[in-house]
Amino acid sequence: MHKSLKNALVGAIEAGGTKFVCAVGTCPQDLDRIEFPSGDSPEHVLAQVTDWLGEQQRRRGKLQAIGIGSFGPIDLHRDSPTYGQITSTPKSGWRNTDILGAVRRVFPDIPLAFDTDVNGAALGEFYWGNGEGLHDFIYITIGTGIGGGVMVGGQLLHGLVHSEMGHLRLPRIPGDAFAGVCPFHGDCWEGLCSGPALLARAKMAAEAIPPEHEAWDRETQYIAYAVANLVCVLSPQRVIIGGSVRKGGQLGQDRFFQMVRARVRIALNDYLVSPPLQEDIDRFIVPPLLGDDAGICGAIALAQREIA
Amino acid sequence: MHKSLKNALVGAIEAGGTKFVCAVGTCPQDLDRIEFPSGDSPEHVLAQVTDWLGEQQRRRGKLQAIGIGSFGPIDLHRDSPTYGQITSTPKSGWRNTDILGAVRRVFPDIPLAFDTDVNGAALGEFYWGNGEGLHDFIYITIGTGIGGGVMVGGQLLHGLVHSEMGHLRLPRIPGDAFAGVCPFHGDCWEGLCSGPALLARAKMAAEAIPPEHEAWDRETQYIAYAVANLVCVLSPQRVIIGGSVRKGGQLGQDRFFQMVRARVRIALNDYLVSPPLQEDIDRFIVPPLLGDDAGICGAIALAQREIA
Repeated sequence: MHKSLKNALVGAIEAGGTKFVCAVGTCPQDLDRIEFPSGDSPEHVLAQVTDWLGEQQRRRGKLQAIGIGSFGPIDLHRDSPTYGQITSTPKSGWRNTDILGAVRRVFPDIPLAFDTDVNGAALGEFYWGNGEGLHDFIYITIGTGIGGGVMVGGQLLHGLVHSEMGHLRLPRIPGDAFAGVCPFHGDCWEGLCSGPALLARAKMAAEAIPPEHEAWDRETQYIAYAVANLVCVLSPQRVIIGGSVRKGGQLGQDRFFQMVRARVRIALNDYLVSPPLQEDIDRFIVPPLLGDDAGICGAIALAQREIA
Repeated sequence: MHKSLKNALVGAIEAGGTKFVCAVGTCPQDLDRIEFPSGDSPEHVLAQVTDWLGEQQRRRGKLQAIGIGSFGPIDLHRDSPTYGQITSTPKSGWRNTDILGAVRRVFPDIPLAFDTDVNGAALGEFYWGNGEGLHDFIYITIGTGIGGGVMVGGQLLHGLVHSEMGHLRLPRIPGDAFAGVCPFHGDCWEGLCSGPALLARAKMAAEAIPPEHEAWDRETQYIAYAVANLVCVLSPQRVIIGGSVRKGGQLGQDRFFQMVRARVRIALNDYLVSPPLQEDIDRFIVPPLLGDDAGICGAIALAQREIA
């Protein structure tokens, strides 16, 4: 499985569709960090990122590696001509952005690790959070979009492209006429449950939606269908749900998770007999221990694993 | 990844809910085989199986290992007290059957390998079929039930229990009022698309359903939703569909696969840009090269891998 990490000084980039988070440090307790808005110009933000990493290197010493967790879809095949690029994203200005190449040009002699933002976050939780000691688990983020990182048998899942579990098709709740917001699929999971979907459904921000509003029932029911599907396919030991939506706005994170867990149990209907899916479900579906830092800590872990 | 196999003389058991297939041999081209109906008495059929394997050993020489691919749910954790048992199956008489123990008692000094029937079939296709050279692919069977074996990064997926992808929840086709036949979930994938589901929907056997019957439209549409979901979660390099239903009855296997492929492309809607999911989809969704022998050949592979 994974080698242990050595607390080497490394750089980290969490490349998101809304913002880039950058950090330099040796472990989650020792991070200098900064954020830049992603904007429409990859050249601009990547120059800000590499300038800042260069400054930190001059200040703290030679970076041993840089880890990059990126939004996607991205090309993860090291032997591909477009390795390290964001490929078919609908995000304006970002299609075919060579994110790894931009970092490589500024840091030509440092090992670089590149993976999805959600595989990075899964790795962060594996080393320092709720994935510790597990060989099969899922890290889901529900925010601007929905995505998931997957560990199977102690390895991050890559495959042909990489997981795009946010685009799962789900059963519709009877009477729910909300069309969904995914430009590709309408009412896939992301189309029904992302932050923008919740806003479109309730016509107010999550923080303003009252706890008894029907939007929370539907949000947690669709998430439960998706999690039950993931359990049937991947048989994880745990499901970690991060991102902004899981905080539950006025409903609160605890109540949000209680609703999801109860509905996953109903969806599975005790077909799979295993305590984590039954009486121990409170420890099976959990928020990230690293909170909103799972992604950037994961990029640190990607970097440190590259030289372990 | 996997070590190469050495064509050792081994025994193989494909334990199905309807029949047990047993074989002894060194490779798919050299198999002596027999079948027994599963029936309601595990003791009875397991005695037939072990008697036959003993006879073959006396005839052909010492078996170097025995591989067992079993229907389930089963316990695959070597350190569990119920390792090697069929656990929570609804099949009459079979709950808590210690299938591995029954073989172990008769063959106390031979290495035994135990996995799901579908992981076994995936392994058979990996060594001798349409999974050759692939590190990430799925083997699905659609017959009495629906199940799938999964290879991720060159390893068979196990996790908390094992994959039970037949119980995926899917969007309903508008106007389709068929309730589904799964005793646990009603209209999950297996409830909508297994052989018994197709029979219940069309009120005739697959072989009798005319090609233009609506049942084929619905069967292939739900399979397409499920395959699209599996693509989003697992990002396989290929999806192999075996089992009896994929032969398509009067529709024919070629037309059946054409309909599934076309509908997977519509479901994915070119969100994932990769030739196997687009122009090369004819080579992405395929029947097993080993045909109906994927399972028993897989049990041979399980045995040979155990001693490789």
